[in-house]
Amino acid sequence: MSLEEKTIDYKQVLENLYITIASEENKGAIATYIPELAKVDAKNFGVCFLSTKNEEYGVGNWQTKFSIQSISKVLSLSIAYQIFGDKIWDRVDVEPSGTPFNSLVQLESDAGIPRNPFMNSGAMVICDMLVSYYENPKEDFLVAVRELCSSSEIRYSEAVAKSEASVGYRNKALCNFIKSFGNIENEPEEVLDFYFHICAIEMSCQELSKVFMFLANPNFTTSKGSKVLSLSKTKRVNAIMQTCGFYDESGEFSFRVGLPGKSGVGGGIVAIYPDKYCITVWSPKLNEKGNSYRGMKFLEAFTTETEQSIF
Amino acid sequence: MSLEEKTIDYKQVLENLYITIASEENKGAIATYIPELAKVDAKNFGVCFLSTKNEEYGVGNWQTKFSIQSISKVLSLSIAYQIFGDKIWDRVDVEPSGTPFNSLVQLESDAGIPRNPFMNSGAMVICDMLVSYYENPKEDFLVAVRELCSSSEIRYSEAVAKSEASVGYRNKALCNFIKSFGNIENEPEEVLDFYFHICAIEMSCQELSKVFMFLANPNFTTSKGSKVLSLSKTKRVNAIMQTCGFYDESGEFSFRVGLPGKSGVGGGIVAIYPDKYCITVWSPKLNEKGNSYRGMKFLEAFTTETEQSIF
Amino acid sequence: MSLEEKTIDYKQVLENLYITIASEENKGAIATYIPELAKVDAKNFGVCFLSTKNEEYGVGNWQTKFSIQSISKVLSLSIAYQIFGDKIWDRVDVEPSGTPFNSLVQLESDAGIPRNPFMNSGAMVICDMLVSYYENPKEDFLVAVRELCSSSEIRYSEAVAKSEASVGYRNKALCNFIKSFGNIENEPEEVLDFYFHICAIEMSCQELSKVFMFLANPNFTTSKGSKVLSLSKTKRVNAIMQTCGFYDESGEFSFRVGLPGKSGVGGGIVAIYPDKYCITVWSPKLNEKGNSYRGMKFLEAFTTETEQSIF
Amino acid sequence: MSLEEKTIDYKQVLENLYITIASEENKGAIATYIPELAKVDAKNFGVCFLSTKNEEYGVGNWQTKFSIQSISKVLSLSIAYQIFGDKIWDRVDVEPSGTPFNSLVQLESDAGIPRNPFMNSGAMVICDMLVSYYENPKEDFLVAVRELCSSSEIRYSEAVAKSEASVGYRNKALCNFIKSFGNIENEPEEVLDFYFHICAIEMSCQELSKVFMFLANPNFTTSKGSKVLSLSKTKRVNAIMQTCGFYDESGEFSFRVGLPGKSGVGGGIVAIYPDKYCITVWSPKLNEKGNSYRGMKFLEAFTTETEQSIF
Repeated sequence: MSLEEKTIDYKQVLENLYITIASEENKGAIATYIPELAKVDAKNFGVCFLSTKNEEYGVGNWQTKFSIQSISKVLSLSIAYQIFGDKIWDRVDVEPSGTPFNSLVQLESDAGIPRNPFMNSGAMVICDMLVSYYENPKEDFLVAVRELCSSSEIRYSEAVAKSEASVGYRNKALCNFIKSFGNIENEPEEVLDFYFHICAIEMSCQELSKVFMFLANPNFTTSKGSKVLSLSKTKRVNAIMQTCGFYDESGEFSFRVGLPGKSGVGGGIVAIYPDKYCITVWSPKLNEKGNSYRGMKFLEAFTTETEQSIF
Repeated sequence: MSLEEKTIDYKQVLENLYITIASEENKGAIATYIPELAKVDAKNFGVCFLSTKNEEYGVGNWQTKFSIQSISKVLSLSIAYQIFGDKIWDRVDVEPSGTPFNSLVQLESDAGIPRNPFMNSGAMVICDMLVSYYENPKEDFLVAVRELCSSSEIRYSEAVAKSEASVGYRNKALCNFIKSFGNIENEPEEVLDFYFHICAIEMSCQELSKVFMFLANPNFTTSKGSKVLSLSKTKRVNAIMQTCGFYDESGEFSFRVGLPGKSGVGGGIVAIYPDKYCITVWSPKLNEKGNSYRGMKFLEAFTTETEQSIF
Repeated sequence: MSLEEKTIDYKQVLENLYITIASEENKGAIATYIPELAKVDAKNFGVCFLSTKNEEYGVGNWQTKFSIQSISKVLSLSIAYQIFGDKIWDRVDVEPSGTPFNSLVQLESDAGIPRNPFMNSGAMVICDMLVSYYENPKEDFLVAVRELCSSSEIRYSEAVAKSEASVGYRNKALCNFIKSFGNIENEPEEVLDFYFHICAIEMSCQELSKVFMFLANPNFTTSKGSKVLSLSKTKRVNAIMQTCGFYDESGEFSFRVGLPGKSGVGGGIVAIYPDKYCITVWSPKLNEKGNSYRGMKFLEAFTTETEQSIF
Repeated sequence: MSLEEKTIDYKQVLENLYITIASEENKGAIATYIPELAKVDAKNFGVCFLSTKNEEYGVGNWQTKFSIQSISKVLSLSIAYQIFGDKIWDRVDVEPSGTPFNSLVQLESDAGIPRNPFMNSGAMVICDMLVSYYENPKEDFLVAVRELCSSSEIRYSEAVAKSEASVGYRNKALCNFIKSFGNIENEPEEVLDFYFHICAIEMSCQELSKVFMFLANPNFTTSKGSKVLSLSKTKRVNAIMQTCGFYDESGEFSFRVGLPGKSGVGGGIVAIYPDKYCITVWSPKLNEKGNSYRGMKFLEAFTTETEQSIF
């Protein structure tokens, strides 16, 4: 909602806010439960703004690759949605959960149907669909992401995938638990291997803003000229990000930032202003809910400063 | 998100959809747990569209008053927000709950802090604040609502308030439970009396669209010329409606309709398109989640037809 | 289980243990949530042993009256069981709960059927039965208890009942919650008044050992010569005490003491050795689970010392 | 509790009850979730009574081996208790759970400490201790059990172990979940392999009554002349069986039968009367809580008929 449509100098806002926030204390802690992730330099801080009119502004470490982690869940959902259409909602719901990202409790009362595709459980069910569909799941998925991004430079970090697999007992628990309800078709080991890999995709803020443009720009087409999702499906993915993109801090993000978005424990956050822009922030230190401390702060300031939000 | 800004004939869309949906089966059931509510005629079906440019279109029973029930929770929240500012968030959270509207379970684990102001528990905490603040809570609240609506024709239904009080054991349980955690200041009886009354306000679709205009129009002023909420606070109330307005069907509404909104068990639903319009639908039969069957259907069709949603 | 049946000098064991434990640190805290209970002197410590052969040994403050609180739940259960027989199990279960005594969570998943008659919720359902049955519930119940005890000196403390009512929001929540499921027949206010009164019965260790003799002695008859419960029903009440008598410390008590028993937040504990004896301990300081610190300690030492337990 | 010590003709009671119950409808269903278990003949029905004075009475299929399943949890607990003493209670609690045997919910709120050693989760933690302790866990455990039973005829069914492993997704979920809390030392695969094997031990009613004699007879010594557990530890294992031996039907068993016992999904139930006897019943059809339908019925009738129970 905006008092009137005014011309905003996004570049100026971006740069000013970056300087301000970079000068303030950097609270929180890097995620250390995945040993490989703990190695990242906490001082990294980058932002990339990309408008539907192709204006691109970057600041700080906006071209440094990092582990996108749960941000990948939007990509796997969108690609599965493109392939399977609304059938996917038979196996995963679209409701916010009110519980942490890796909770097993609701699965028990919901008989194996995850609350939404952005909880780990829901993302695993989506992964299971893709594992069933693709001939070479890991390779084929990368091809699809690269096409979205028009870049061949998107890769998995085998070190991160392996590191996560080595300690991912809770995710193994989740996947076996869903399997016990019959909502995983393949063997948990295979689904988890795929899941750990797509979480281990590495991208920069610049690449993420580009790859998420299909959710901001209704006229977006891939490098091969094809549309990703219909207008209606695009709207729906954005709606799920709005209600479920930040685990049990989704309401808080919606409340403070007012845009659909998705975060990852690597410290990245992507936010979408439909019809206008996509913005990606990266700063590895996380608040206690597992979302980037500076990322949250930057995006709240950004929508406040520009007096723009979808509400 | 819209492919391009086009001129939409809202009146035409409204009337066509009304005819279509009125001709289809009217599923669901009237809420019967409040005896007085059960008396309403299930055939009622009305819609009122009101744009920020003051275009008003009504169809069906759009001028018939009905019990607004939980829709009142947006009014009590907004008025409390105006009075107390961000202090209210010390006593109630802004997260979607993932559980039914009257659940006691989360209160136990959250030590008496309701998940959001649109659950019954959260609305009671807001009511408690207003009971502490107002000299004559019921009278003073009505004055505030009338000012928002520029109408002196807004009243409580004493019959509905009394009817709900006579069977409201679960709400009594909730209020005493929150009191046991110290998050209710006044005696539960007084808070409940106020709560049951504001749920029993009666308005028509026309009046509701008018009274909610302050959430759609950033330039809105009351009949006395004063602003209700700042732009930032308005945005935040809309954000909470988006994530929490439909109990454990909030994600579904966001997914299908793509607008912030609020429903009541009287069969009313108000939805807001910030900067553009407010739309109210009323049809008493509810789906299994407690939201108006035709209301949900109409609004989904309306945003699909107009190809407009905030996403 | 005992290596061999040997002659035990209960009096000697009792007195020695009393001296030992009285000399050790008295940990824990008096229950303060009921203001009137907080007034009791923490130094009180009494024990009364009564065998089925009518040997009675007392030590310390064994003849001082105190608030029996939840110990009364065994009396209300037994009297209701006598009146209604196995019909009572339609409205309350016999399973341990695994949750604190005043939890509302399980009631929600169990649709208003309390887990057992020793949780507050279950005791309220039992109270509701008695309120429906008796002409003057409070008076009539006292008559029944006095008959069990062959004493006219048993009374309610009106001060404690009133004190508990004044702060009993959680119990009010519980009772209204069960009523909302239809498992309370009378108005919650009336059931709660009865419930708060029977919790406020005052007895000494001596009186409690006497009143509980019907659960230890299969040949017990009341002052009027009538049997309380059949052998089979007696066994069942003891079994419920064994599994549910100490809230979420029931397993611990069973593990350490090995006798069926029941505690109250007034600091009393009654334990039964079927066919052999009834023993009551009172010491007001409670451990973190709400059971008498010295009471637990004394009983564990007593069964260890005598090498007797039902196991 | 018994009116007086009378001479009971156990053999006669056993045989009469067997005939009666065998003539009545055999309700319930064989456990089919482990494919190999589903192959058993539902008509099997055997009982073996063994007194501490070595009186042995058998009837029906009392010498046929069957899969003891969860009954093995008492053996692993007892052997671990013998090895590690009370240290084991740092990693597993002794409280009844109030939830099904394979629930993950409580583990989440209890941070990975299982409620008791007879839930699957608790048994896995015990297994983990034994895996850490033994050089060749599966072989060494069998040696220990054989010594208890004075029989070299106790074996694992590799077919059942393999069958359970092939479908045991929920158990895999449980074990990985506990591991994620740090309460499993070894790799889940190894712990599960051990766990599935000890569940797959095959014994007859006769062998089970013999192997459990150490819990009934305080003077019991193994074939090598050594004591298994001290009197105090024996009492404690019996107490845990009493409160936790039948999952969320533990209260019901205690209520109806009044003896400590343990059931398995293979249809076996062992019950202990301390100082007097051990009795084992086997009938594969299970009630809805997963306990042998005829086993429960027989034991209830047996303690009613003999007018003997620990209460």
